[in-house]
Amino acid sequence: MNKGHIDTSKPVAIVGAGLVGAGWAIAFARAGLAVRVYDANARIAEAAIPWATGQLRALHAHGLIDESPETVAGRLQMVDSLEAAISDAAYVQESVLERLDVKRKLMTDIDAVADADVIIGSSSSGMPASAFSCDLTISPRVIIAHPVNPPYLVPVVELVPSTQTVAETTAFVEKLMVGIGQSVVRVRKEIEGFVLNRLQAALLREAWALQRDGVASCEDIDKTVRDGLGWRWSFMGPFETIDLNAPEGVADYARRLGPLYYSIAKSRVDDGPWDPELIARVEHDRRQHLPADELAARRNWRDAKLMEFAARQVESGES
Amino acid sequence: MNKGHIDTSKPVAIVGAGLVGAGWAIAFARAGLAVRVYDANARIAEAAIPWATGQLRALHAHGLIDESPETVAGRLQMVDSLEAAISDAAYVQESVLERLDVKRKLMTDIDAVADADVIIGSSSSGMPASAFSCDLTISPRVIIAHPVNPPYLVPVVELVPSTQTVAETTAFVEKLMVGIGQSVVRVRKEIEGFVLNRLQAALLREAWALQRDGVASCEDIDKTVRDGLGWRWSFMGPFETIDLNAPEGVADYARRLGPLYYSIAKSRVDDGPWDPELIARVEHDRRQHLPADELAARRNWRDAKLMEFAARQVESGES
Repeated sequence: MNKGHIDTSKPVAIVGAGLVGAGWAIAFARAGLAVRVYDANARIAEAAIPWATGQLRALHAHGLIDESPETVAGRLQMVDSLEAAISDAAYVQESVLERLDVKRKLMTDIDAVADADVIIGSSSSGMPASAFSCDLTISPRVIIAHPVNPPYLVPVVELVPSTQTVAETTAFVEKLMVGIGQSVVRVRKEIEGFVLNRLQAALLREAWALQRDGVASCEDIDKTVRDGLGWRWSFMGPFETIDLNAPEGVADYARRLGPLYYSIAKSRVDDGPWDPELIARVEHDRRQHLPADELAARRNWRDAKLMEFAARQVESGES
Repeated sequence: MNKGHIDTSKPVAIVGAGLVGAGWAIAFARAGLAVRVYDANARIAEAAIPWATGQLRALHAHGLIDESPETVAGRLQMVDSLEAAISDAAYVQESVLERLDVKRKLMTDIDAVADADVIIGSSSSGMPASAFSCDLTISPRVIIAHPVNPPYLVPVVELVPSTQTVAETTAFVEKLMVGIGQSVVRVRKEIEGFVLNRLQAALLREAWALQRDGVASCEDIDKTVRDGLGWRWSFMGPFETIDLNAPEGVADYARRLGPLYYSIAKSRVDDGPWDPELIARVEHDRRQHLPADELAARRNWRDAKLMEFAARQVESGES
């Protein structure tokens, strides 16, 4: 995952330094870029670099960075204003709260102080950029660059232009992301949830419905994925999986199994939002397997598993 | 994955020795059981043991069996009639063609020759047992035991009783499957596609719709899963993933993201079966990445990746 240095003399700016923003800071600094970090919330701002340094130590322990954690952390600079962050920056990655009014306010604030050529990526996980980035001077240079958390471990990033984004912006951000080692997905039409969260939404909706209807417990549904479907999806994705699952490939598969899948789809009608009673049942089901006071420890376990996963990808030449 | 010998003095019978049946034969023989293999098609019958022996050599090369491939293969015995296969067997795993009339015919044939206490598992991947196993002497002793292919690598198996299956049958098959190292999912109500294929159907339906609508290519959708969603699902499953993705756990997550996911679900209405034109487009898209004459080689690559995956599960104590 250590991709060597990217050819850019200008720094990158991180605006919003919570888990997502601080994660992006690691991804850029690891690739050799100077990174300015800003958060309007002083408490979040103070925590960002110490947290990132801790993560860099863990990455180093897993063989995921060659340089010392301190060398990489030395590329991170906390600044105390939006203007100081983005002034002279080549690229701004914003990761502020996922709320339309907050994103729009930030875009107008950036518009007021941005250089004429800065490119801006938004970490929005589902709201299309056209909903908050249009009709400003910067509009042609704003694009969604949606990561999975944490972006320094899981490589996928969705690029979604707004109706006003120009092609040069998309090309710039694609090159930048590939350069720092991310795996770029081009989303060609604005759609709520983009690709990643729409796929997750579809699977989760079925999972919640199966739990609600008493077909299987949360734990048994999790097992079905982690001991079954998830193995192939973790190195092939859904289309390659089915392409290899019928003698003549994907069209053969679709002719054999399409009717079953369509019958299943028709049987799952709109069954309303997850109501409080269902949420309480799922919560109860999960807490049997993981008490609330062990959530934090289990997150650390997950992050260690993701680091092992990433280290194996490097070993096998997949990354 | 080498689970040691199961305590049973009676053999297991494999009926239907295509890829799924021969895969089951490996899973049982590896665990130390004597396995009788039968297929009504002489060509398939002849190929089964040589193929299984080749797979056992690959498993040995990946450190997934301790015994020699020949020792394990020595537990496989080809027989030339249904009666010879199931006579005195403790358990029959049927993996004949996924068609209602074929499954029903086999059940009546088994009923005519079965001992009073033999237990029968069906590899049906989506048809509930009540559709083909009822109103026979053996009915209380028939249950769905649906594997992922290949069952000797991917551990999940769905157990789905019919309306006439007795609890002792479910308990017997669960114990047998756990004993040979499978991961058992209990499906508590009969539903088309069970849990595994319903989850896969939900994700595939969204994936095909995104491709059809020009939102993303097959390759970009595959990337979204294999470089993103699939990493966490391969060791956590969907419920644990979201449980760890909000500060207060799954209920917190549902309150934050439930409205987005419901909005996405509502936007995906019944849009008909995959029509021939769409199937042709997906086929074309896939063939750009994998020519038809490389499908077989890519399947070997997949199986090697699954063996690596299985070997790592053993190393990390997850299996």
